[in-house]
Amino acid sequence: MYEFEMPSRRALLTAIGKAGGAAALYQAMTALGHAAPTQFSGPPKLSGAKSGAKVIILGSGLAGMLAAYEMQKAGYQVQILEFQNRPGGRNYTVRGGDVIKEVSGAVQEVKFAPGNYLNPGPWRIPFHHQALLHYCQELGVQLEPFTQYNLNGYLHTDKAYGGKPQRLAEVSVDFKGHIAELLAKAVNKNALDDTLSKEDKEKLLEAMRGWGLLDKDMAYTSGLRASSQRGYDRPPGGGVNGAPTPSTIAGLQDVLDPRVWSAVTSTLSRTMQPTMFQPVGGIDAIGKAFARKLEGKIRLNTKVTKIAQDDKGVTIAWTDAVNGMKGETKADFCVCTIPLPMLSQIEVQVAPAKKAAIDALPYHSSCKVGLEMKRRFWEQDEQIYGGHSFTTQPIGEIAYPSYGFFKPGPAVLLGAYAGGAHAYRFAAMTPAERIEAALAQGSVFHKQYRAEYSNGVAVSWSQLPWIQACASSWTDELRAPHYQNLVSVDGRVVLAGEHCSYIGAWMEAALLSSLDAITRLHQRALAA
Amino acid sequence: MYEFEMPSRRALLTAIGKAGGAAALYQAMTALGHAAPTQFSGPPKLSGAKSGAKVIILGSGLAGMLAAYEMQKAGYQVQILEFQNRPGGRNYTVRGGDVIKEVSGAVQEVKFAPGNYLNPGPWRIPFHHQALLHYCQELGVQLEPFTQYNLNGYLHTDKAYGGKPQRLAEVSVDFKGHIAELLAKAVNKNALDDTLSKEDKEKLLEAMRGWGLLDKDMAYTSGLRASSQRGYDRPPGGGVNGAPTPSTIAGLQDVLDPRVWSAVTSTLSRTMQPTMFQPVGGIDAIGKAFARKLEGKIRLNTKVTKIAQDDKGVTIAWTDAVNGMKGETKADFCVCTIPLPMLSQIEVQVAPAKKAAIDALPYHSSCKVGLEMKRRFWEQDEQIYGGHSFTTQPIGEIAYPSYGFFKPGPAVLLGAYAGGAHAYRFAAMTPAERIEAALAQGSVFHKQYRAEYSNGVAVSWSQLPWIQACASSWTDELRAPHYQNLVSVDGRVVLAGEHCSYIGAWMEAALLSSLDAITRLHQRALAA
Repeated sequence: MYEFEMPSRRALLTAIGKAGGAAALYQAMTALGHAAPTQFSGPPKLSGAKSGAKVIILGSGLAGMLAAYEMQKAGYQVQILEFQNRPGGRNYTVRGGDVIKEVSGAVQEVKFAPGNYLNPGPWRIPFHHQALLHYCQELGVQLEPFTQYNLNGYLHTDKAYGGKPQRLAEVSVDFKGHIAELLAKAVNKNALDDTLSKEDKEKLLEAMRGWGLLDKDMAYTSGLRASSQRGYDRPPGGGVNGAPTPSTIAGLQDVLDPRVWSAVTSTLSRTMQPTMFQPVGGIDAIGKAFARKLEGKIRLNTKVTKIAQDDKGVTIAWTDAVNGMKGETKADFCVCTIPLPMLSQIEVQVAPAKKAAIDALPYHSSCKVGLEMKRRFWEQDEQIYGGHSFTTQPIGEIAYPSYGFFKPGPAVLLGAYAGGAHAYRFAAMTPAERIEAALAQGSVFHKQYRAEYSNGVAVSWSQLPWIQACASSWTDELRAPHYQNLVSVDGRVVLAGEHCSYIGAWMEAALLSSLDAITRLHQRALAA
Repeated sequence: MYEFEMPSRRALLTAIGKAGGAAALYQAMTALGHAAPTQFSGPPKLSGAKSGAKVIILGSGLAGMLAAYEMQKAGYQVQILEFQNRPGGRNYTVRGGDVIKEVSGAVQEVKFAPGNYLNPGPWRIPFHHQALLHYCQELGVQLEPFTQYNLNGYLHTDKAYGGKPQRLAEVSVDFKGHIAELLAKAVNKNALDDTLSKEDKEKLLEAMRGWGLLDKDMAYTSGLRASSQRGYDRPPGGGVNGAPTPSTIAGLQDVLDPRVWSAVTSTLSRTMQPTMFQPVGGIDAIGKAFARKLEGKIRLNTKVTKIAQDDKGVTIAWTDAVNGMKGETKADFCVCTIPLPMLSQIEVQVAPAKKAAIDALPYHSSCKVGLEMKRRFWEQDEQIYGGHSFTTQPIGEIAYPSYGFFKPGPAVLLGAYAGGAHAYRFAAMTPAERIEAALAQGSVFHKQYRAEYSNGVAVSWSQLPWIQACASSWTDELRAPHYQNLVSVDGRVVLAGEHCSYIGAWMEAALLSSLDAITRLHQRALAA
């Protein structure tokens, strides 16, 4: 879920290790020579289901609801048991009037103005998440562009630029300018003559000059040429005083800060590449659209206490969270989408290897803070329309809303998106302390912060009683012994959810996992 | 207006020359240390206008209508004379039923389905064009994001990749991978030891490894690491077969093609940086919003034949294009926004230096072809939502619509945006030939082109009788003797329009030029 992580040498080596390990998986490119965008190949074909066969689905997140929706279409009788008092799971949006209760006992009531919202979990859809985009169309979920990439956002790092935030355009353009100058210098010293032909050298120098905006001496210097990308002190205008004034470039020392190249490359990450989308009005439009197709099929406030199975069927024991009533539901098959931090606490009759996989997979946490500001000062004063400002501080970033551009009145920005160890530090604070931290740290970008602040909400995933975590954290070392055991059909039970995928955290992961799980469960049912 | 031009050595040297020449303009950075986004500092303050003073404005493009709008607010009596049968000038949208007549005699009737359109001229608004964004708010023009940057579009060059289109993500990521590998190699050979300290070298190597996605041997190689940005042959998915398959990188030879670095850097151009916007429903929403504020003040179909002035006032001679009636309109002052290709053919009583400037400035042309396709195959089959595909062919690019994402039914894409010499070659063809050229060349990207084509329209600016050109083409050599003479107040006459700016072509240029012109004309009026 993070588009921006501080790279460490260890992380890099791990990534390289993964790449090496995957060599075994390498296959010839497709005939077209283009990378495929998605593993989604259309809705599942589940023909020949036995009439009246019953499937119980545990959890009404996207994986669970998609399983119910498609198996119902295929002729199965479906029933969902849901722990919470709403369907949707992590497909979750908070609005004014909503109440958030934490494991700690803290209770927040959201005070956002009508129309404003925070998506504490998933909030954006990559163009290549074609399963999700497909179901948004099928279910009538209206989408609008999500502005992921905005070079007018800021970068703040405690180690460079004297700690002063820079526009992302400035750091991006300065980084490549200095890289180009250095490479051109090396080429002109004939340092790469063993690699490059004379013609290659000429082409490469021309590339460095053009891409890096180098001057006639092949140097990256302050002037109108660099300003044409990094921005001007005074941009070109009209009339008598229309001439532009160039801006001043930063030095090599500043752009060598790892946060700089990390920022430059972050939007190239496949999951962050534009065009991205979001549902109009909040991410929960997706969960609500699925739930409308499953009316009467979702039992809310139902805490599963045991998953039993034998060769005749499955039996799910549960407790009603409202009235304490205990019950049992029998079915022919079960799709279990309960997140593993919860599932590992429940008695499940599956093979030891699957149980070991359920217990082995760690989850990470995250914390999002939504700050309602009295006005869109980031647009009105600083010309930032959507996108992010990144910082080395614990909040990680600020994200500006991709809806309601130019509107007067209050708006909600994402004031913190803390991950890693910071997520747990935020979770240990009271909600008010988290908001205060977000305000203090965000002020490094926006001097208007304190004066314009109206109200806020801080969602720490490890504090949410129904999941106590954010999302699964696979590593190659864990996948080798556990992944196939986790996803296999075990008797009459199959697991689904983002934890049963190579994607992780994203809504697409829940859907692709679910499609695969129900396809295999259907085959199992036909064989029964 | 072009976001993508083939770089030539000459163009680069010219650009470098400009940068050098601008050294004289260099000023200290602002106190904040950030580049300023705009020269716009709010609506003009034109207080103290003499009651009843009359201003005649020639041309109802954005410059002319803004002049009328603000001078009317200030208390002037305003009247606009417009050559065409509609206000708006180049702020122009064509829709089904519209008729386009050319100098050549060719007539096109647009056949687009309801709701579809082509903006033949301006079509997108940079975030830093704050004058335009301001007036869009003031006049109630609804804006939506314009998707300029989409790495899932294609790059086609006749010189690289065997002529086969590549996704922009692939070429962008491969380019930086190879650059990073080369620079790392040079650093490890100690070729830059005179420039870099030991610590710099370590930081730089870490940056190249991270930014360039290099492997443990500091090489850019095919694998999951490169695929995490350039895309996979089979992306990560869910369930049993969720493991990804990496894609294969291109070699150094391919990425050294100048079109590659040009594509990589094109979206960093200041005017092309996200977030960009467009008016909902067509760019002419802006012109129409201005026109609504000037009801009864715009005389259409009025061809200006002479602009005369003395110390008492100005006299504009004109001919009614519909009934041939000749007339004269007198006023105290005149704002002339007639494009120079037309103005240079009219008798104008101004100082010889201004007349020389009017005659000296060349204009360039361009041609846009709008193709209505039966369905959004670029979205449905190829996951391209907005943005561009670039080619070395004369069409220059395809641009995909930034509105109506996911909708079934016909949609209009920009099938050609020809500039430079190609624009004139397109202008020399019949409209049907231009459309055929667009279909033939665009097929390099999309095999669906011929089967899905429904109808098209081809607008060659040099063929439009009311302007016979696209926009002004200043060079430093022309600015030195002519620019200030062009924009100066001459007696009772001042010129405005994109040609009176350092921006050129963009709507912002028309507005900033107009604001500057009327501010100076107002001062002149007060002094009269």
